[in-house]
This record gives sequence, C-alpha cells and structure tokens, in this order.
Amino acid sequence: MKKTTTRLADGRELIYYDSRDDVVREAVDRRPLDPVATASEIRHDRLLGDSVAIASHRQGRTYHPPADECPLCPSRDGRLSEIPAADYDVAVFENRFPSLAGDSGRCEVVCFTSDHDASFADLTDGHAALVLEAWTDRTAELSQLPGVEQVFCFENRGAEIGVTLGHPHGQIYAYPFTTPRTQRMLASLAAHRERTGGRNLFDDLLADERADGRRIVLDGDHWTAFVPYAAHWPYEVHLYPKRRVPDLLALDDDARTEFPQIYLEVLRRFDRIFDGRSGGDEGAREAPTPYIAAWHQAPVRAADRADFALHLEVFTIRRTPGKLKFLAGSESGMNVFINDVPPEAAAARLREVASES
Amino acid sequence: MKKTTTRLADGRELIYYDSRDDVVREAVDRRPLDPVATASEIRHDRLLGDSVAIASHRQGRTYHPPADECPLCPSRDGRLSEIPAADYDVAVFENRFPSLAGDSGRCEVVCFTSDHDASFADLTDGHAALVLEAWTDRTAELSQLPGVEQVFCFENRGAEIGVTLGHPHGQIYAYPFTTPRTQRMLASLAAHRERTGGRNLFDDLLADERADGRRIVLDGDHWTAFVPYAAHWPYEVHLYPKRRVPDLLALDDDARTEFPQIYLEVLRRFDRIFDGRSGGDEGAREAPTPYIAAWHQAPVRAADRADFALHLEVFTIRRTPGKLKFLAGSESGMNVFINDVPPEAAAARLREVASES
Repeated sequence: MKKTTTRLADGRELIYYDSRDDVVREAVDRRPLDPVATASEIRHDRLLGDSVAIASHRQGRTYHPPADECPLCPSRDGRLSEIPAADYDVAVFENRFPSLAGDSGRCEVVCFTSDHDASFADLTDGHAALVLEAWTDRTAELSQLPGVEQVFCFENRGAEIGVTLGHPHGQIYAYPFTTPRTQRMLASLAAHRERTGGRNLFDDLLADERADGRRIVLDGDHWTAFVPYAAHWPYEVHLYPKRRVPDLLALDDDARTEFPQIYLEVLRRFDRIFDGRSGGDEGAREAPTPYIAAWHQAPVRAADRADFALHLEVFTIRRTPGKLKFLAGSESGMNVFINDVPPEAAAARLREVASES
Repeated sequence: MKKTTTRLADGRELIYYDSRDDVVREAVDRRPLDPVATASEIRHDRLLGDSVAIASHRQGRTYHPPADECPLCPSRDGRLSEIPAADYDVAVFENRFPSLAGDSGRCEVVCFTSDHDASFADLTDGHAALVLEAWTDRTAELSQLPGVEQVFCFENRGAEIGVTLGHPHGQIYAYPFTTPRTQRMLASLAAHRERTGGRNLFDDLLADERADGRRIVLDGDHWTAFVPYAAHWPYEVHLYPKRRVPDLLALDDDARTEFPQIYLEVLRRFDRIFDGRSGGDEGAREAPTPYIAAWHQAPVRAADRADFALHLEVFTIRRTPGKLKFLAGSESGMNVFINDVPPEAAAARLREVASES
C-alpha cells in the first residue's frame, strides 16, 4: 500500500491510498476555488445533555448532481473534480461542506473506488482491504489532531437515506467530544463490570449471541456477524472481531485478512433481502437496499478505552419492498424504537440469502 | 363537552368527544372483525440501556389507502370505517395495529375531525380546545391502567414523515416504562437542582430564552413558543405554559383557553415557512410542511414528577423546499445531530410568516 498526501486548491487535504507501491500522484488541482468558509458551531442542549452541530454553510452543498458532474469521479477530459488524478484506488479528502470544522472537529470524504457505478459490495476482497487500511490510517491521523475525541468512519448508502452523491463513498467525522451513543455504551460497560465483579459486557453479549445462535448471520474464524437481540432497525447486523480490540488500529492481521470476506458477504446479502418479494407487475427492480454502516471505536482519550469493543453496525431503513421505516413520533419524540421485523426473522432471512459457494 | 365510551366489533374501545352535550352516540360497529392478534414484545438493549418494541403484526397494516376507503372517516353510505357514527367531532380508538399492546402498553388513534381533507391547522379554536380536552382525558384514563408509566400524545403529519393515512389524526402511546428522552430530562433536572441549590432547569431555560429573545416565536399571556438554543431540527418550536405544570391534567383554565390560539398560529406559520421560496417554474406548490408534534408529560409515577414541565415540541424534517433532513450516519449511528438552519434564523423566519391580524 502506498499513501500520498497532497492539497487541493483551497488548502484542503487529499490523501491517495494505492494498492501498487509504484504509483506516482503528481496531478495538481487547477480549479479556481474560494477558501472554504465554514461557520460550524457546537451547541450543548442542557435538557437532553447532548451536543448539536449547527452548520449553516451546508445549505448550499452539492445535491444530486448529474453523473457527468460527479465531484468524486477522477478528473478526466478537462472536467475537474475533487480528485485531480485521472484515476485512483481509494481517495480521502476534507469535506468542502463540513458539519464539523475548525475547533469543532473535521469531516472527510472517503471515495471507495473511482468506478462511479459500483457500490461497496462490488469491490474485490483486495480493494475492500485497501479501504480498511484507509479507515485505519485516517483513524490514526485524526486521533492526533488537537481537540478530536472520537473518530467515526461510516457509509450512508442510497437516496432513501439522504445520500446526495451516487458515487460510492463514505465519510469520517472526527468529533470534538465523545458521542452520546458511545457514552451510553461506556456507562453500560462500567455498570456491568461493577455488577459482575469485572466482566466485560461486550464479551458477554457476543458469547450470549453465539450460545443462543438464533440471530447469528455469519460466523467466521475471526469475525461474528449477528442481528442483535433488541435490534432497533428492520434489518440490522453487528460485526465483531472475535478478539476484542478498542479500535481499527488494534486489529490483528488475521482479522484484517478475513474482514473483507465477511463484510462483503453481509452487504451482498443486504442487497438480496428484498429480492423476489416485490411482485413483478411493473417489472421494475427495487433500488439497491439503502443502508448505514457505522464503525464504533473507543474514544481517543477515554480512561477505560481498553474495555471497548470495536465493531461495525450495518442497518437498513427499508422494512419491506417499497416501504421505509420512518423515525416518527415514538422514535424522534421519545427515543423509543418500534421494530416491525423480529430479530430472529431478520437473521433467518439473512441466512436464507447467502451466496452460493 | 360530552364523552361517550363504546366498543368496536373486536372489543377495542372507541370514545367520542363531542362539543354539544345533547349528541347521542348509538351507532354499532357492524363489521365482521377478527379479534386483534398482537404479539408486541418489549426488549431491553443491554448496551444502549433502552427498550425496543418488537411488533411483527404491524407489517400488514393499512398503507396509504385510497381516500374513499379511509378507515378514519365516519361510516357513511354503507362504507364501514373504524368510526360507526355518521359524523363526529373528535374520536379516539384503540389502534388495530398497535406497537404496544397487552402488558406492553397501549396505542390509540385520535381523529381530530371528521373532515378528511382538513389538517390540524384548519381547526377552529373551539375544535382545537376539544382535542386538548380529549388529550387530557386520555392522559387521565391511560395513567390509571396497570403497568402504564408514561402517556405520550403526538401527531405525525405528512407522507414525508411516514404517515400512511391522510386523514387528520394523532396518536397516543401509553408506554410501560419511562422513555429514554424523558429519563434524560429528569437526570438533567436533578443535576441542575443539585448544582444550583434547588433551582428548576425548565424554569431557568424558559427565563433565559425570554431574556435573550432572539429565538422567541410567540409570547402569549399564558404560553411561550421559542426555537431552542440547541435545536436539533431545521425548524423546531417548543411551547411552554408560563405556569409550570407536570402534565395536561394540571393546566389551568387560562392556559387551556389560550392554547388553541398559540398552537394553531404556530402550525399555520409552519405551513408558510417554505412559501415563496420554492421557485415557480413548475407552478407546483410544495406539499404542506411535514411535522411531528410531541407532548412531553411527567411520567405517571416518577418521584420528582412535580418538577417536570409539560411542553409541546413541534419540528419539521424539511430543510428547504424539496429537501429533507435525513437521520443518517451521525444522527442514527452516533446520536449527534447536524442542523443546517441556525436556531436564530429559524426563529426569525417563523416571526416573518406571522398571520396578519
């Protein structure tokens, strides 16, 4: 793997991750870009105890551009994009419309491939391993930035989930605080440790899921994928390395090597969940399953970070073909999720659509 | 106001709230209904510490029926709906597809008016007052049910928010636990009381908003409506009675009388936020603003329930005409909200679109 760090015309960082070591990245960004003007502000909600990023400059951001104006494609034939090179393997750059910026953190875009029409599930094992390297390296780099408390690598996939660019890409948010969800996990972890005389909640949960078995989707040598007992979303899968580590940096070679096989298979199954159910009257195929894939890592400086378990949560907002799960009154008003798909049924469906091998 | 309690063919309760005291409600539900089969189950998430309602029977629920098959319209001309009467003012019945049922709580549907094409904002002051009476009465009744810990009255409005029935209606969830959002408010309240030697956080927040003034939307004699300092949603308004009360039952007559004026004006302004901005090329008017309106009440049995402040939170997921706020990676994965509309700008816009008086 070769890493090349450079800058875009407005000073934002751009990093190429190439699988070949002899690639030379010398293309220069020739666009006449104004400096990025951001006014991101973190506000604390005294009643809910959480923080909100107020990012007014984002209202003007690129919204569903035509494919031939895609800012994530390589620059070709005189069309200048966010990537000056004529081709790339994986490229990461600072978001031009960041939700978090300056003292409030940092936002990056991860282009998974130069192929506009592909999706993560189409990547080869080797290419997915390169994305994993990029996520790991960015976590290392962003963790060093002053003020960054937590690094969050994620992918939003599909227009139904609000994705405004069709090109396969993910994002990385470097938050200036530990997020509420992670805080809650750390609190549960501490309470469990206290109650059980030192046991680790993540270890116990994973052991319980494996012992029960009804919600297991895939059980590899180094990773386990399952639908959690109290899944919040119609189809939700959590991937844990069997050897607990706090973050991507701590993954061993065995886990790194197996990860693409497990994750790509989970994503391909997600794309097949709704196949053959939509009824063929219109002959129109359902759009690919929308999903959110979220890497949970220990906060950079948490005292008990060694107890945290790195894992990946993947879930879809689609309930059945053509029907979405909305976060309406109960979820958005009271934070109580209603899930119409029993976790055991979701897991059974996800086993049913396994790839032929 | 006259209240008439009756039963539907499958045993579910139906309650009419009429403004006239001489109305007689004798219509009988003649539909051949199967008993309601529900399998609602509450599961605890050990990592997040919250509860999820698993409600698999809901997958088959009524989904965007044609207007002439609306189950919330009165029964007329031989078409039998959920309301046997040929007309009604306000009607409440147990949901046929409840998210919570049996030991897991109860779900009710509140039909705001028999007029299929109206919306809450179209109601007269008197009719809105009748809805307020219905919410209050249902809170009193549901609070008495064994196992009910919190009563939540809310309205989801608009297809963009996932509403599957166009008829103007809201819902009431009676939860068998205190919801996570309310738990957090109670924790903040206790911490503030501790830190300040007994001060009430709700009182202080409201006083601060009124002293600052930039986010005030409407200031009545008995209610204040403002955009909170750390608003999570593009347009979000909180309505507080000036005299703090824990729940709807404790509202005094002055607050009851003024509520319709304040709330209807807020809703009408919501419908005007996006007017005149959508550009007229296509001549197509934007659909009415989608919103969620959520009544926050003290839990039924909380020890410090007297410190809680009843209030109504109204917010929209629309950011600008044609663009929605999605809960993607940061919100759904980490519970960190990104808001593109500064609260002060949202409040200014909501003052700008005031009704002519």
